[in-house]
Amino acid sequence: MNFADLVVEEIKKKNSCVVAGLDPKIDCLPKAFKEKANRNPKAAADVLFAFCREIINIVAQYVVAVKLQIAFFELFGSYGISAFERVCKFGSQKGLVVIADIKRGDISSTADAYSAAYLGKNSLFCVDAVTVNPFFGSDGIEPFLEVANENNKGLFILVRTSNPSSAEFQELIVDGEPIYKIFARRVSRWGKRAVGREGYSSVGAVVGATFPKQGREIRKILSKSFLLIPGYGTQGGKSRDLKHLFNPDGLGAIINASRSISFAYKVPPFDKIYGETNWQKAVEEAVIRMKDELNGIRFSPQ
Amino acid sequence: MNFADLVVEEIKKKNSCVVAGLDPKIDCLPKAFKEKANRNPKAAADVLFAFCREIINIVAQYVVAVKLQIAFFELFGSYGISAFERVCKFGSQKGLVVIADIKRGDISSTADAYSAAYLGKNSLFCVDAVTVNPFFGSDGIEPFLEVANENNKGLFILVRTSNPSSAEFQELIVDGEPIYKIFARRVSRWGKRAVGREGYSSVGAVVGATFPKQGREIRKILSKSFLLIPGYGTQGGKSRDLKHLFNPDGLGAIINASRSISFAYKVPPFDKIYGETNWQKAVEEAVIRMKDELNGIRFSPQ
Repeated sequence: MNFADLVVEEIKKKNSCVVAGLDPKIDCLPKAFKEKANRNPKAAADVLFAFCREIINIVAQYVVAVKLQIAFFELFGSYGISAFERVCKFGSQKGLVVIADIKRGDISSTADAYSAAYLGKNSLFCVDAVTVNPFFGSDGIEPFLEVANENNKGLFILVRTSNPSSAEFQELIVDGEPIYKIFARRVSRWGKRAVGREGYSSVGAVVGATFPKQGREIRKILSKSFLLIPGYGTQGGKSRDLKHLFNPDGLGAIINASRSISFAYKVPPFDKIYGETNWQKAVEEAVIRMKDELNGIRFSPQ
Repeated sequence: MNFADLVVEEIKKKNSCVVAGLDPKIDCLPKAFKEKANRNPKAAADVLFAFCREIINIVAQYVVAVKLQIAFFELFGSYGISAFERVCKFGSQKGLVVIADIKRGDISSTADAYSAAYLGKNSLFCVDAVTVNPFFGSDGIEPFLEVANENNKGLFILVRTSNPSSAEFQELIVDGEPIYKIFARRVSRWGKRAVGREGYSSVGAVVGATFPKQGREIRKILSKSFLLIPGYGTQGGKSRDLKHLFNPDGLGAIINASRSISFAYKVPPFDKIYGETNWQKAVEEAVIRMKDELNGIRFSPQ
């Protein structure tokens, strides 16, 4: 099944556009996990798996996808990558779309190796889509496109990232328009070969929730692509700002929250209500609230 | 010891500016390795280590550094990363500067995790420097700078990559000048805090050998930085084109070749002279020839 069709199906089935980001930063974990993790790298990696498994068990019925931030796994070397493999597999077994947030980008045979590693038919990772950095231009994207198309996988190409200094390069003006628009048009072109029966392409874009005006422009350029939106919650993106990232069909965007779900026990009002001992309840309430909030806006008039 | 000082010392000691790139693509390996590798991912990872160890043993006396392309290791998941750890360690034990060609780039706590993973004091990898993708702007670079400076490590930030389509983005014109120049100036600024006693900064740039004109301009902007130059050999970069990438002191650039060293047995004239059975001799002659060729131009008048 085409990746975009899979996403549409899951959104409708779950009535949710939420992606639970798994950014298991050891310092933020509940105490019992943190203590075990501090023993040694292997123990830390096992904790990453155990924690992510708990999160997945809690959120699975409310979210479309999980997005694993691989950096937090790479921190523990081969042990960490083993945990990453296990988390991907567990998420997949729970029926979730699994997005590997790897932001890789390179050229020719190196890009071939990355795309085969994560999206190839012999991949060791149960991954449905990856994030890709477009710095290299088409040479860096084509190998990913090819492998993704062959194996019904998805890509989310960085277009406008959520961090404050992303403007330094992404908003430089070329021939009267900002670079992120140039990228958006390229993503549109790269995605043309991968449109599914629901009308959406398996080649999407990463667009930060923290820049609603730019997001609106990108939505117009990329009307057929799924936007993967980080930056909701802890980074400051608000749900009302996200309205224009959806198409009139209520589709076209999936919204990621990482810390504000996984570590909800640290965030008002859940810190007071639940605290660390009931961190699982905080996760559940945070994800339900996010799902409802977004459903409240994604079908509202533009 | 400051990373740039270490590089200068090694260049002088070895009388070489050559970096041996380790891009162990299974398909290119001599037959005996390839056959073993095709059994299963663990066997493949062990082959990556065994092959890279042989290369390191052959080239160690002729090169300043090895540059490991992590994609070829990631292809074999946690087994591959274990092999990557072992190759880094072996290179380091042989007295080589170890550059991890990871091209990571991300923001805030994710960039912290990547920089801690590869350059931190508890890193599981014996790595002296990494390559970094600057797409995110300063937010994405600062965490790497901080960890690198704390631990005397180096960074090579992508400025002008060696692939044909790199111009699509890197040569867009902003206020009358191409983006790679804007990147070069930022690298110069980012590197100011990290200048060693030899006058070079530990924050360098990646500049493809395939674009000599642009390389010359970048050299002028980044007079105090080491340039890591891929694209020599198989990708078409010629030694005469590299002259202007060196400073008058014969320093300031290290030149990488991957396939044309590791797989020299496939490349004229070594394919005819040695062939696959004597692939090790081909490696040795290729690296010596490259070293001599570059020494012939790096001190010649500009």
